Amino acid sequence: MNKFEFQNPVKLYFGEGEIAKVAKEIAPGSKVLVTYGGGSIKRNGIYDQVMAALKDCIVIEFGGIEANPDYDTLMRAVALGKAEKVDFTLAVGGGSIIDGTKFITAAMNYDGDPWDFIVGKAPVPAAKPFGTVLTLPATGSEMNCGAVISRRATKEKYAFHNAKGFPQFSVLDPTAVFSLPKRQIANGIIDTFIHTTEQYLTTAGSPRVMDRFAEGVLLTLVEIAPHLIAEGTPSYDDCANFMMAATMGLNGFLAMGVDEDWATHMIGHELTALHGLDHGVTLAIVWEGTMNVMRREKEAKLLQYAERVWGITGGTSDEIIDKAIAATDNFFRSLGVKTLLGEYGIGEETIVAVRNRFEERKWNLGENGIVTPEKVEQILRCRL
Amino acid sequence: MNKFEFQNPVKLYFGEGEIAKVAKEIAPGSKVLVTYGGGSIKRNGIYDQVMAALKDCIVIEFGGIEANPDYDTLMRAVALGKAEKVDFTLAVGGGSIIDGTKFITAAMNYDGDPWDFIVGKAPVPAAKPFGTVLTLPATGSEMNCGAVISRRATKEKYAFHNAKGFPQFSVLDPTAVFSLPKRQIANGIIDTFIHTTEQYLTTAGSPRVMDRFAEGVLLTLVEIAPHLIAEGTPSYDDCANFMMAATMGLNGFLAMGVDEDWATHMIGHELTALHGLDHGVTLAIVWEGTMNVMRREKEAKLLQYAERVWGITGGTSDEIIDKAIAATDNFFRSLGVKTLLGEYGIGEETIVAVRNRFEERKWNLGENGIVTPEKVEQILRCRL
Repeated sequence: MNKFEFQNPVKLYFGEGEIAKVAKEIAPGSKVLVTYGGGSIKRNGIYDQVMAALKDCIVIEFGGIEANPDYDTLMRAVALGKAEKVDFTLAVGGGSIIDGTKFITAAMNYDGDPWDFIVGKAPVPAAKPFGTVLTLPATGSEMNCGAVISRRATKEKYAFHNAKGFPQFSVLDPTAVFSLPKRQIANGIIDTFIHTTEQYLTTAGSPRVMDRFAEGVLLTLVEIAPHLIAEGTPSYDDCANFMMAATMGLNGFLAMGVDEDWATHMIGHELTALHGLDHGVTLAIVWEGTMNVMRREKEAKLLQYAERVWGITGGTSDEIIDKAIAATDNFFRSLGVKTLLGEYGIGEETIVAVRNRFEERKWNLGENGIVTPEKVEQILRCRL
Repeated sequence: MNKFEFQNPVKLYFGEGEIAKVAKEIAPGSKVLVTYGGGSIKRNGIYDQVMAALKDCIVIEFGGIEANPDYDTLMRAVALGKAEKVDFTLAVGGGSIIDGTKFITAAMNYDGDPWDFIVGKAPVPAAKPFGTVLTLPATGSEMNCGAVISRRATKEKYAFHNAKGFPQFSVLDPTAVFSLPKRQIANGIIDTFIHTTEQYLTTAGSPRVMDRFAEGVLLTLVEIAPHLIAEGTPSYDDCANFMMAATMGLNGFLAMGVDEDWATHMIGHELTALHGLDHGVTLAIVWEGTMNVMRREKEAKLLQYAERVWGITGGTSDEIIDKAIAATDNFFRSLGVKTLLGEYGIGEETIVAVRNRFEERKWNLGENGIVTPEKVEQILRCRL
């Protein structure tokens, strides 16, 4: 078991109607920058609840942040926030809005070119205070200090972390899931699933409690996914379980004392950067390749995963692992997501492009740093 | 699923040698009150590591805090801390030392009679800053804001909570378990086990992820207990898994959105107050009574517990529940702990005394508030 340091100061308000608690967290009279996306919050009533909670504040709005939030869009929010000298920023949305807001609140504290801290050329500055109202369970961003930012101009997508950039609070109201398109629910389930496996399907010998917690998130997703994805509005409890699973999947708890992988995410980011695929879709495509190619290094954990999550035990190691990968593929496909590159019209040239990018950046991925650019090519090649 | 608010700001340092990190957390030149117990830390090297980490601070020592920390002892520490105007308090010990330190650091901020806030006659004041070095996994006190204080003069024992009284940091070095007496390890395992069931064996419909997490802690304890309790020094990994299970068992995570019981604890506290029994022992005695008497109210969760923790499925509900209770009793006894009142020479008169105390206080216990003093008597009567 590895040494670790852990701290997560985020305050959660969980439950129907809890958006009103925003009023407890932001001082009356504050100038609040409210960030959001394409406007779905105006149709499902969340916008109205937020504005009611902020009735004693001065509100500046910045809407229109897109999925895979774009650097150029976000820089306009930074300029607005600086010009207005806002006291607090409230992100109302899913992971893209929250990630974008993590960038905005850090960049408002930065005088140089903020791209530098995204790509690691400069330390990330402490963020100005912000909170979130979560509308889409998926990324866990509401209870962590990481963010992923895209730059369409250069087809790039990078993650950064900011130990001084946790939300002060996050409101998790499960009723936000009621009106989500099934495609977004499917993406959120897959994102949560693979956040968990990135912290679980690595080396043997991780803490037993963390293995059980990770398996608990995965089992929960497998149990509730059919209800969430079925036609019609899901139940409150299914939505609540989904929201809790997503938050627990990436708030640092599952990572205590474990080795982490993240190769699937890093490769997936390139597919989004190059082709604009949904993040969840890229993960469903890449994951099976990573497990296939790295099956020897991950063998002990893949066998444990097969048994504890899917109840698969009979046969040789490779047979069990094949069955577990197939069960996972069936699960992703049951959500309506295609899992092969060819099904999205993506072929050979992209594989070469991704390999070249990792070679240029000298990136070796995975829990042991042995997912070389050559291995990345192998991973993608078995997903053609 | 219930609404909930959650925040846990404690910073953890986990791993061998991490006691040195205390130096990062306490400013050089600070006047530090170091609280500890009977002196085992001087024999196992922890005292020396703490003093090395505090070499740039002014250290005031207060040793001799006993198990089930006594109000009168702690009041002497409060007087010392106030007289010396200490900047920071560092608890080095198990739950008793940490709980006692939570009282000391709150009482140092209080001008009246601090007993008032223990018994709920006054709000608990914000605590002066403190951290912990954990030496005995059991209570979870290192990562929560609760404490239990005894008053031998009046044979009383009460819990209090202080939202402004979390440790700033806690160091969890699993090697501290190496030199623990097996009796303390057994008590710590039982304490962790029953902290978990107090948050799990309640009403149906709690969050699926929380159920899985609770089962994960229980399964981990069942797996590692034989290694920990066997003769000789346990392995680092077993100690680390134990320490992590204890901390996760009562840091607020398992409680998210769930109903909580705590009847077993409240009844157990009386047995300690009246007879000085180890806390873990009282829990092992009382738990089976609580489950037996409340089996209808807890039926759905007891059946789930039987299946997921012990693999018991066949038979009627009552048969399954009986088997699960028996399996748990075997588990406690395998740790060398006797689980009947009679085995400790405790009889009828104590049962009446406990019932009378709860009647005087008008306490109804349990997740539904239906464990009346009469039910308490039934619970204890079936443990004679």
